[in-house]
Parts: sequence; structure tokens; C-alpha cells
Amino acid sequence: MINIKEDKELNILNHSCAHLMAQAVKHLYPESLFWVGPVIDEGFYYDMDLGGKTLTNEDLDRISKEMKKIAKDGKRIVRHELSKEEALEMFKNDPYKIDLINEMDDDEVISCYTQGDFTDLCRGPHVESVKELKHFKLLKFSGSYYKGDAKNKPLQRIYGVCFKTEEDLENHLKELEEAKERDHRKLGKDLGIFVTNDLVGKGLPMYLPNGYIIWEELENYIKGKEKKLNYQHVLTPPLGNVMLYKTSGHWDHYQENMFPKMEVDGEEFVLRPMNCPHHMMIYANEMHSYKDLPIRIGEIARDCRFEASGALKGIERARTFCQNDAHLFVTKEQIGSEIKNVVDLIMEVYEELNIKNFHFELSLRDPADKVKYYPDDEMWENAEDTLRKVLNEYHIKYVEKIGEAAFYGPKLDVQVKPAVGPEYTLSTCQLDFCLPMKFNLTYVDKDGEKKTPVVIHRAILGSLDRFIAYILEEYKGALPLWLSPIEINIIPVNNEYHLEYAKKIYELLKKENIRVTLDERNEKLSYKMRESVIKKIPYTLVLGGKELESNSISYRKYKSEETINISTEEFITKIKEEIKNKSFE
Amino acid sequence: MINIKEDKELNILNHSCAHLMAQAVKHLYPESLFWVGPVIDEGFYYDMDLGGKTLTNEDLDRISKEMKKIAKDGKRIVRHELSKEEALEMFKNDPYKIDLINEMDDDEVISCYTQGDFTDLCRGPHVESVKELKHFKLLKFSGSYYKGDAKNKPLQRIYGVCFKTEEDLENHLKELEEAKERDHRKLGKDLGIFVTNDLVGKGLPMYLPNGYIIWEELENYIKGKEKKLNYQHVLTPPLGNVMLYKTSGHWDHYQENMFPKMEVDGEEFVLRPMNCPHHMMIYANEMHSYKDLPIRIGEIARDCRFEASGALKGIERARTFCQNDAHLFVTKEQIGSEIKNVVDLIMEVYEELNIKNFHFELSLRDPADKVKYYPDDEMWENAEDTLRKVLNEYHIKYVEKIGEAAFYGPKLDVQVKPAVGPEYTLSTCQLDFCLPMKFNLTYVDKDGEKKTPVVIHRAILGSLDRFIAYILEEYKGALPLWLSPIEINIIPVNNEYHLEYAKKIYELLKKENIRVTLDERNEKLSYKMRESVIKKIPYTLVLGGKELESNSISYRKYKSEETINISTEEFITKIKEEIKNKSFE
Repeated sequence: MINIKEDKELNILNHSCAHLMAQAVKHLYPESLFWVGPVIDEGFYYDMDLGGKTLTNEDLDRISKEMKKIAKDGKRIVRHELSKEEALEMFKNDPYKIDLINEMDDDEVISCYTQGDFTDLCRGPHVESVKELKHFKLLKFSGSYYKGDAKNKPLQRIYGVCFKTEEDLENHLKELEEAKERDHRKLGKDLGIFVTNDLVGKGLPMYLPNGYIIWEELENYIKGKEKKLNYQHVLTPPLGNVMLYKTSGHWDHYQENMFPKMEVDGEEFVLRPMNCPHHMMIYANEMHSYKDLPIRIGEIARDCRFEASGALKGIERARTFCQNDAHLFVTKEQIGSEIKNVVDLIMEVYEELNIKNFHFELSLRDPADKVKYYPDDEMWENAEDTLRKVLNEYHIKYVEKIGEAAFYGPKLDVQVKPAVGPEYTLSTCQLDFCLPMKFNLTYVDKDGEKKTPVVIHRAILGSLDRFIAYILEEYKGALPLWLSPIEINIIPVNNEYHLEYAKKIYELLKKENIRVTLDERNEKLSYKMRESVIKKIPYTLVLGGKELESNSISYRKYKSEETINISTEEFITKIKEEIKNKSFE
Repeated sequence: MINIKEDKELNILNHSCAHLMAQAVKHLYPESLFWVGPVIDEGFYYDMDLGGKTLTNEDLDRISKEMKKIAKDGKRIVRHELSKEEALEMFKNDPYKIDLINEMDDDEVISCYTQGDFTDLCRGPHVESVKELKHFKLLKFSGSYYKGDAKNKPLQRIYGVCFKTEEDLENHLKELEEAKERDHRKLGKDLGIFVTNDLVGKGLPMYLPNGYIIWEELENYIKGKEKKLNYQHVLTPPLGNVMLYKTSGHWDHYQENMFPKMEVDGEEFVLRPMNCPHHMMIYANEMHSYKDLPIRIGEIARDCRFEASGALKGIERARTFCQNDAHLFVTKEQIGSEIKNVVDLIMEVYEELNIKNFHFELSLRDPADKVKYYPDDEMWENAEDTLRKVLNEYHIKYVEKIGEAAFYGPKLDVQVKPAVGPEYTLSTCQLDFCLPMKFNLTYVDKDGEKKTPVVIHRAILGSLDRFIAYILEEYKGALPLWLSPIEINIIPVNNEYHLEYAKKIYELLKKENIRVTLDERNEKLSYKMRESVIKKIPYTLVLGGKELESNSISYRKYKSEETINISTEEFITKIKEEIKNKSFE
């Protein structure tokens, strides 16, 4: 979706449209005073004091009509400049403007923009005439506060967006609608995936039964993959002694993202923002020989980070989440083969889960600014070459990001472009030369010497939570069969005659561990079928006389208009095959 | 194991033995002064000031020999009484005794006990003569502090135990040895199940790969059982807003068991000691009809409780653990059938997991003290009768515990007697009339009225952590096949000739998802076999020329001396059957 604030032309257009809206509001509610009306990524808003009035949808319509009228009149928008003194005199009856003017420097040139009967204090620039402001939409309204502080006077805020043509506007509104439809918070609610509630705590989503089914499938899927690659899974607690994070350095460098510490019984505990230190301690629990390496410690690991409440977003950004995390302990010589294993796994998983819109980024040290990085030139050069080599052998396109490496080593990120919103890092594979040293990790090498292993931090599905948000939005909630909380819904055509047969099929499917529901309510067939579609259930079976007689089933796939009749055995075979293959068609 | 402190005769015997030990110490280290020497559950100890000397095992032997000598001499133990003043004069050179005497009331009669050349301040009573004190054992020594305070002078403490006959002593020492062997902390370390570390935090065990395998098997096992009974599983975060626990009442009544709150961004969070409130909120997320009930919400739920560091014990008692928890939301009429389902599940699980040493306890309201309980006579009587009826229909023996019910309802506990230590509650099934009201939970009944559901809290395996401790101790670490981290270990007789065949069998088993290891180290066969036994691996395959030629395998079961040769196919079938049946032989 286009970013209005960042697009120079649209930015000016939307700012002018905010003035137009203020003018219309002034016409309709002459007592109104105006605070600020900035451009934002999504368009514009204006915070207004309507003298105690609370807006309704009807008001929005009236304001919109008035704006059209003014735009049609086509007045020019004219800039005046004045001194601070003059400005204070001009707006002497408007405490909001007085406030704004007083915050300016004494020698600053202050500008006003006038269109017909309306003048507003503004730095500008603006479009030439209000007639350029015909293609707008007022999107919503909400309460706000003077200076954004809940202790101050409540204001009314109206959001809108403006484009240069009606076509652009319509396309944008369609995109907005689409994004709303795909928003995992809406889907999560509609499909019973998760719920958040302020009494439970902001940023602490709870997975409902449907959501946990998806979770469990993904957890088992990725753990299964990792087991085949000789990962060893562990389970470590979601908190630790503060000393653990002082040792790792998180306490000094990451504390603002952590929950506050808990002091009790002479110990200080803290919820962990990352589980690397726990995994370091697991490695440290035993002596290791070079023959034992690589050691691959994996965990679906519960972490807790403090996020500002404004940054929270469903399960995509919460205050607690579980990472599909692993730490690989390797010798220097094993870096290449182990990175290749990780890239293999990423490619395999993306292929199976139908993730297509992604690219690799290689974050390297800035050789011109070496002091920012762990000081071992040879280590860096070898590691960076190895990463490049793995990607080149794969013929994978990638972007090199000079200076984007962490202090502790270079990394390989996979950026995905989700259906809604900007791209982000889904999978990551980071080399770390430092953490193993901080925890004094060693192995005994061939020559009998104690050496420090290199650690590779890696995540494939990122956090399970964010991944679930991602696939919900990607599939608009119509998940592939194997991830669908309900795989099949059975509807008897007529409960009186066909319920028994429907129950028989239900039991048959259940025995095959297929997630199946039977809708035996006394509702109309068409009503039940519509509900099955609303719930985005992949297969709906409609069982009536024909099916009963021929011991068959008739199914309709989600979003298909076609009803297909096949034998029950064939259907079961087909379904089991689709589940096994993680089919996403 | 017998509780020495609670056994009247053994209590006196052990107290006298502490004096005997002090006498021997005084003979050997004449500078010694003595603080206190109480009887404890396990025997006795004495805290002593040895003038800076630190004890060694050799000292323990010398003291023990000296004690035997004194006991053989057979001096009588004689009581004297004296005034506080006389006592202060008598012990004027002993600051520890002076301290003890000063703490006594002025008019208290003070007693001393003398045996030969040794007199100690003591309330008594004691045995008649030191010759009764021949059957003792000094168990261990450790450092301690004057008055138990680390800021005070360090003392030396010796622990011992005394019996009336040599046979009793020997039996007891055998039991002690057995308990030590079975202690899940020792087994957990030896078998790589879990590790605790003060840097990670006291009471925060981490499951190592072998431990997580057991965890995962148990989690899948119990969730599978619950799914068949139409439980719906959820996943909720291990913390919540303090308001949630104010609503549930935990904040007022359970706070001393909770971690301190974390204040941030205007919210107060706290690690949850129980997950009931989260599950209440999941129920409250939707409207419910009587037709939807019972609703069964299950979770392997991470909880965190604050335990004093002295109370911590491996994974049996930790500061964080995961409960095999569920909350059943039922109508009043459904209480009986739902409780029966829970008892069915308990009996099925105990049968399958071979839990034999258990009994039921029914905790009821004390009808003479009704004010202590939720005030609804009819509800209580019906609920208690229903619980009784379920147990009676089962012909299950049970103990009724009048007055042991919770404020909110009666409960059914299953007490198990573990291999080591006292019995405790493994499974529980508690009725709750109150919590659903606190959260305003409702369902719409047949008559269209909103009613409050009854909640049944239930846990089958208790916490997974404690259950793992339980089965480790129960089986002395030699777990049933399906729970063993390594199910089969393969040893080639001679790497040069048989490694290839061993690898073939290894791959065959691996393909069947059997947890198998191949010991290809260049070590002696007997050494490798001994290690296989030390690791308590259920099946060890020894593959040599005979097996290679006949395409067969030879196996030895853990603790068996017999080697059995069968065809590879037969073996795989047998193993898979045993795993499937959760065989525990």
C-alpha cells in the first residue's frame, strides 16, 4: 500500500485536504477550534475541539458533502507571511493556535494559508486551489486529547485520505478493504484463533482451541524437520537470574526491551527476552570433544519482551511469543556445511509451505569501520566468504548489506513480503563469535587443545506467533488443509433421513484422525453451507439420499461452486494424501 | 522410610547418640565446644566448634571408633538438676552454653546429663546407659553456622543415625542407599534429564535433550487421551495483569506464593501461579448455550510460583512447572457424568502407566462449620453425593476427609505413594462454585435464563515436571521403552567386520522412528555393553558374524543376562508393539 507521508505530491495533497476538512467543519460547527492536522502514512487527520460535540457517522457524511461543495467552488489557496506578534494578534481568540505560535522561535517567519473564508496557521506547502481536492474519503473518527495527553481536554479526530484522481482513490479504498479483510486480528477473531483482553494483560494473546491446532501442527512440523537433521530439543524456563543476562550482555545492551526485574529471596529474576543464554548453559553443562560437534540445540522457546502498548499488534507483535529457535555449536571448519544445512532447511520449508515472496540478505561488517565489530579479521573474512559461497552455490540472489552485521558476526536473513504491510525478517542465521566466549564454552580439539566453538543462532519460522499471523494474512484465513482447525464439515441434507449416514461418515473420518465436524442443527441446508464457507472450512460434505444409497460422499471445496461425488474410500484416500503432502491448493 | 523424630523410642536413642558423638569428639579434640544437637526426621546432628578445624572423612572414622569404645565401656547416663545460677557457674567457660542458659526462664529447672567424663546441658530424656548406643552410623558432615546465620561463626556439623539393633541399622542404611540411587536429582544428572544452575536461577530447571524426549512423549500421550474425550486445548501466556488475579482472588489469598509484580507502562504484570483465570477468560470470550456444555479447556500450562530456596527439589519442586491442567465448564446436572469421565481417565492412565500404589481421598465440607464454605447447602450436598456415588459405582475404596474441602467446593484427590518420600496428590478433580461467578461466566439454559456454569478443575499427571520426577524414582531411571530417551543401543562386536551391518540395522530402526544409537567407538565390547547398562537403555543389540550371516539381531534387555537372537523383522515388530502398548516389563 502506498505510503502517503513518504510520497511528496500526495503528502501536500493530503495536508491541503486536512485544511479543506477543517473549513467544512467550521462551516457546519462555527464554534470549532483546531489543534493539529498532520499527514500520516495512511493519509491525514485533524484534531478538533467541537465545543463538546461528539461525532457520528452522519456528521462525517455532512462534512464530506460540505467539502465537495467547497472544492467545487474552487477557491485559490493563498499564502501570507507574518511576524510572531502579528500572528498572536490574528489568532488571539484561539487558545490552540496561541499555544502553537508560542512554541515557535521569536524570529521565525510564520505563515498562514487562506482559502475563501478560511484561514489556518500552517508551514505549508499546499496545492494551488481547493479544486484539486475532489478525490478524498473521510475514513473514520475517534476521540483524542489535546497534546495527546489523557489528562488534557478531549478532542475529536477525523481521519481521511486524498488522491489526485477518482480512480486512484477507488483503488486505494479497495486495497484498504482487502487489508482489513486480511488483517490477522480480524481473522483471528472471526475464526476463533486467538483473543486478547486487557484484563489478561495488553500484549498477552491467548490461543483459542482453533489457534492451538494450527500451533501444534506447526510445532510438530518444524520439530520433525529438525529431528531428522539431528537437532536435540530442550525445554528451558521463560525467566532467569539477572546475572545470566549480565553475563550474556543483554542486561547492559537490551534492557529497554526487557520486563523489569523481580527481586525475591536475595535473588533477582527477569523474564527472558531471548533464550540464547539458556542454551549456552546447556552446552556448558558437559565437556565436549570435537567429535561431538556440531551440537544442535533447538527449542520452541517462550520469550517475553517489553513492547510499548502502541506497538502491539495481535500475535504479530506481542509481549510474549515462542521462537522456533536453535543454537548450533560448531568448529570454525564446520561453519560452511552447517550454514548450508540451515539454508537447505529454509528452502525445503518455504517450498513445502508455499512461501514465495522472499529474498535473502547478507549482512556484513563495514571494513571501513572495523572498531564496531568483534576484532578478528580472519574470522570475519572466512565467515563472510563462507556465507557468500553457500548462497552462490545455490544460485540464490541476495543483497549484500555492508555494515549491517551484528557486533558479534555476519548474518543471513530471509526477508518476506507479507500480504499486508512491509517486508520483514522471517528466517535468520547469525554467526556469533562472542557469546560462546562470554560463557567460556569450549571443546577439546584433535590436538588436545581447548578451543571455543562458534555459535550459529538460527530461526526458520521466526516466532510461531508471528508466523501464524503471516499465514493467516497470506491465505486470508483459508488455510491449507493440514493447518485448518476444521478440515471437513459434514451437513446432512435432511436430518430426519440422512443424519445417521452423516454420523457414520463422521465416525469414519474421525477414526482417521481427520478434524471433522458434523452440523446436525435443525437449520436450512443453504444456511449451514453458508456458515461452512464463512468458517473457511476446506471441505464441506453434503450428504443426502444419493450419497446414502451409493455409499458415497459429495464434497464442495472452499470457494468452489462445484459439487463432486466420489466413493467414501476414494475421498478418505484423497484427503489423507492432501494432508500428508501439505497440499495448499 | 521410618521417621526417627516421630518414633518415640528412636527419638530418645538418637538424641543420646548425639551426646555420645559429642563425648567422642571431646576426647579427640579437647578444645571442642558444642552448640545444639537435635533429633531430625533422618536421625540426629550436632553443631560443633572444633576451634577452626575442618572435618574430613578420616575424622568421621576416628570419631566413630571412639564412640564404639565409649559405648563398650558402658557408663550409665545420669541426670542432674540445677538452678540457672549454678548452670551459669558450671558452664562459665563455654560461651555457647552460656547463651543457651541465658535464653531460659529464670525459674526454669535446668538439667544436665553426665556419662563418664562428659557432661552436657540437656532437657533429656536419655537412655539409661551408653551401652545401648552401639548400632549407629555417622552419615556425613557439613559446615553450618552459629545460630544458623551465615554472618556468625562457622561451625562443623556431623549427621548420624542410631538404631536398637544392628539389623535395623543395616536395613535402614540399605533403604538410604536405595533412596539415594532413586533420587531423581541424581538420576536426572546421570541420565542427562535436566540440569539446574544458580546462574540460570535457583529453582529453574532446564530439560536436557533426554529429558525433553520424556516430556514430549508424556505431553503427546495425555493430550491424545484428552482429545479423544473432546477436550479443546489452548495456549495461554505464563503471566497476566495483576487485575486478573485480583478478580480471581489469588492476589489476596495466594500472593505469598507468587513472584513479585512487574510495573511497566502503567500496567502491573505478574507471573501466574495458576492458569484458571486465563481459562475463565477463554470461556468468557464467547456466548454459550446449554447445548455447548460441557466445554473442556485443556492446556499443558506453564505456571510460576515462588518457593523458598530451602524447599526446592530438582523438578519435583521448582519455581516454574507445567501443569497437565484442564477446566471443565458444566451444568449442575452434568457434574456426575463429567466427574465419572475424569475418574475413568485417571483409572485408564494409571493402568497404562502402571501406577499401583495410590488411593482416593474425598475432601468434604465440615457441616459443623458451614461459615467457612461457599453458602449453598443444596449445591454442596448434591455435589458431595455425586462424588461419593461415582466412587461407589466404581467400587473404589476412598477416605472421606471432613473439613478438607476448599472454600469453593468439594474435591477428589488421588494420593500416590512414591518410591521415595511421603505420599502426595498426583491427580485432582475439584468442583468450583465460586470462580465462574467471579468472572461472571454464564450460559443460556433451555428456559432462556442466563445461568452460571460449575467449573471442574482437574489434573491427571499433576505437573509434567513432578510426574517425570515420580516415574524416574519409580523405575530407578530404567523407564519403560516408550519413555526411554534412547530405546535401543547398537554395538558391533568388531568395528572392522560388523560396523557396516550395524549401520544397516541402525538405519532400519531409525526409519521406523525408533530412538536408536550406534556405538561405533573403538572401545572394548564389554566396556560398551557396561555403558549401555549404566545409561539404562532398554535394549542393547550386539551384532557380530552370526547376526550378519543370518540377517538377524541379538539383543539383551536391560538387567537381563540373557542374549536372544531373532530375525530383524521379528525384532522390529516386537519393539513397535511394545512401544505402542506402552509396555512396562
